[in-house]
Amino acid sequence: MDSERATCVSCGRAYPAGRQRCGCGEPLWLETDASEYDWPSDDTTGMWRFADLLPVDPPTGLGAGVGGTPLVRTERLDAYAGCRLSVKDETRNPTGSFKDRGSAVGVAAVAERGDQWVGTVSHGNMGMSVAAHAASVGLDCLVFVPEDIPAERHSLIAQYDPELVTVRGSYGRLYEATVDSPLPVEFVNSDSPLRVAGQKTVAFEILEGFAPDAPDAIALPVSSGGNASAVWKALREARTAGLIDDIPRLYLVQAAACDPVATAYRGGADSVTPVEAGDTIAYSIANADPPSGTRALAAVRDTDGAVVSVTDDEIRDAMSVLSSRAGLCVEAASATALAGVRALSASGEVRPDERVVLVATGTGFKEGTGRATDVVSSSIDVDSFESAVRDRIEGS
Amino acid sequence: MDSERATCVSCGRAYPAGRQRCGCGEPLWLETDASEYDWPSDDTTGMWRFADLLPVDPPTGLGAGVGGTPLVRTERLDAYAGCRLSVKDETRNPTGSFKDRGSAVGVAAVAERGDQWVGTVSHGNMGMSVAAHAASVGLDCLVFVPEDIPAERHSLIAQYDPELVTVRGSYGRLYEATVDSPLPVEFVNSDSPLRVAGQKTVAFEILEGFAPDAPDAIALPVSSGGNASAVWKALREARTAGLIDDIPRLYLVQAAACDPVATAYRGGADSVTPVEAGDTIAYSIANADPPSGTRALAAVRDTDGAVVSVTDDEIRDAMSVLSSRAGLCVEAASATALAGVRALSASGEVRPDERVVLVATGTGFKEGTGRATDVVSSSIDVDSFESAVRDRIEGS
Repeated sequence: MDSERATCVSCGRAYPAGRQRCGCGEPLWLETDASEYDWPSDDTTGMWRFADLLPVDPPTGLGAGVGGTPLVRTERLDAYAGCRLSVKDETRNPTGSFKDRGSAVGVAAVAERGDQWVGTVSHGNMGMSVAAHAASVGLDCLVFVPEDIPAERHSLIAQYDPELVTVRGSYGRLYEATVDSPLPVEFVNSDSPLRVAGQKTVAFEILEGFAPDAPDAIALPVSSGGNASAVWKALREARTAGLIDDIPRLYLVQAAACDPVATAYRGGADSVTPVEAGDTIAYSIANADPPSGTRALAAVRDTDGAVVSVTDDEIRDAMSVLSSRAGLCVEAASATALAGVRALSASGEVRPDERVVLVATGTGFKEGTGRATDVVSSSIDVDSFESAVRDRIEGS
Repeated sequence: MDSERATCVSCGRAYPAGRQRCGCGEPLWLETDASEYDWPSDDTTGMWRFADLLPVDPPTGLGAGVGGTPLVRTERLDAYAGCRLSVKDETRNPTGSFKDRGSAVGVAAVAERGDQWVGTVSHGNMGMSVAAHAASVGLDCLVFVPEDIPAERHSLIAQYDPELVTVRGSYGRLYEATVDSPLPVEFVNSDSPLRVAGQKTVAFEILEGFAPDAPDAIALPVSSGGNASAVWKALREARTAGLIDDIPRLYLVQAAACDPVATAYRGGADSVTPVEAGDTIAYSIANADPPSGTRALAAVRDTDGAVVSVTDDEIRDAMSVLSSRAGLCVEAASATALAGVRALSASGEVRPDERVVLVATGTGFKEGTGRATDVVSSSIDVDSFESAVRDRIEGS
């Protein structure tokens, strides 16, 4: 595949592959020539089904089994969502989040070059993911985390045996220090070109699931803007290849307490500027200064979508509805997308007959302790089992 | 499919489908005529690829996306395991465990009949699984748990909104109260015929992954014996269908603190009798009186396999190796299987050139709080980032 160039979608400049940032300050992505591309005719499953559009060959180890996640039609959520909803269940990846797609490509690229070190700057999911993929192929891994994340997340990352380093000081400055750094470490951060290349496969899987039609819209949470960029890149490539006629609208959702992209969208701005962040249960997406925020904004404008923000109460409610009506246990950041679709339907932006795909980005299993524990319906003695069951059935 | 009869593999008696226990006391399973069966020629993915061997039609909801889990060749574990190891990653099911295969069939059967109530008796994973599948199709669900499980597990189950009832008294008696009960509730317990039918799909996926060859052995943890029975049933059906010539050896592994099946195997007994159980970190498989233990023992004898038990220290070590060398985060019960394979290799039972498949039954993500938290390699200030990275690379 032609991925020898990294380009800036904002100013149009091109660089040799490997560079992460444009001279204009915007993030680069890897150029992909999709003009001759068609749906694969073989029966390869998972993200490597789309290997012809990726900058690396299919790897061994954990990366071989990434993607191919279920696209579940969730009729029981339609009334709540206000549309015909499907869920792309990214919780089903090896480390429980969408991050595995990008980590698989980043780690495979380092292994292909014969290099030894991979790294990332993360609050949790990405650190776990990069460390797990590195462990499975024997690469060394550096994970830098802010010093204020909970110790429980340390242990989830540390099980994969990376060098786990806590960092005092600005997270934004730490991120910048890793971008195009002279160090002999490939930092596969949230919007690095290799990660964006891997993440785009989720959109190809969604589109193939609907082919020859296409969904009306795709909704996802937005943090750094890297994943939104990846989905947009896939939609552009699919349009270039002639796989879709109309591009689905891209809806991005943020937590109201930390919503720089939504703020820029509401204000009609062309670029995203940092905000003062408050606390939110959707901590995975609480990025006050998103490095690909402006590109995410461009994605929304190009696809005729929107950016909305939702309150923590709305997020909690959506999380509860996802588990109790669809059997899906997701983290708060993922439930944000459902709360956003509900808001967009309430405002008339999304219509009841439209087909919307919600990307469930990460599992809620890692956050067991954050859930309510006062949840037992009742307590019985084993001797009263049968009458207890009859009471419950008759009382329901 | 012909699943109108439930049969006893021990004494050979047959009953109408729906009955769970034989008059001889042993569990029944659903008769399957596999004599004309061949590998599917279509591209259906997941467990419903084998729908022709199942007693229900493919369902909607969460059940539609069960199975089709990766079979990962884990070369970096070969030295530790003492053989050529692959991992069948059942953590990738919707609720993070192998239980989803059986729950999908049980819940689909209730929905097909137009009934409303499904139930289970569980320490955790099975309760979550049955409740999640019921939620996704709008069935009512009863989950009975022993009163001494941690409150954190209550919350993981309760998110799917079942009637969650704690029970004082003997867990064994509770289980027996649900078997062939007159109540209008389908109890999809660990060795119910519907569950066993669903669980067998994991073995068909493993066999198809190796076709036209077959692995030399399959290793899994054993608790009630229901899952071991399901794998054995699949191997028998595959042999009947002519899909394999030699049946893989079935290795079952228990925690030493609670190992009734291993005790019976070591003693040369034909049936399993209850043991006094001690504590183990592999609590998911700590069943002192396994209802399908005798059938599991027959499976091992029929396939020329073995049952072994391993210590908690060996389990902890295997769990750490799975994450740090394969990127797999599993619960202690799953790591037990790797510790068992290592022991079997050390004793010469498994040879270095043999191909062994380990079934990783459940994710470790639900148990985050059980892991060590004193795991940070070091702490730095963001201003010293570059020199800190160089120090780590040079010191490695």
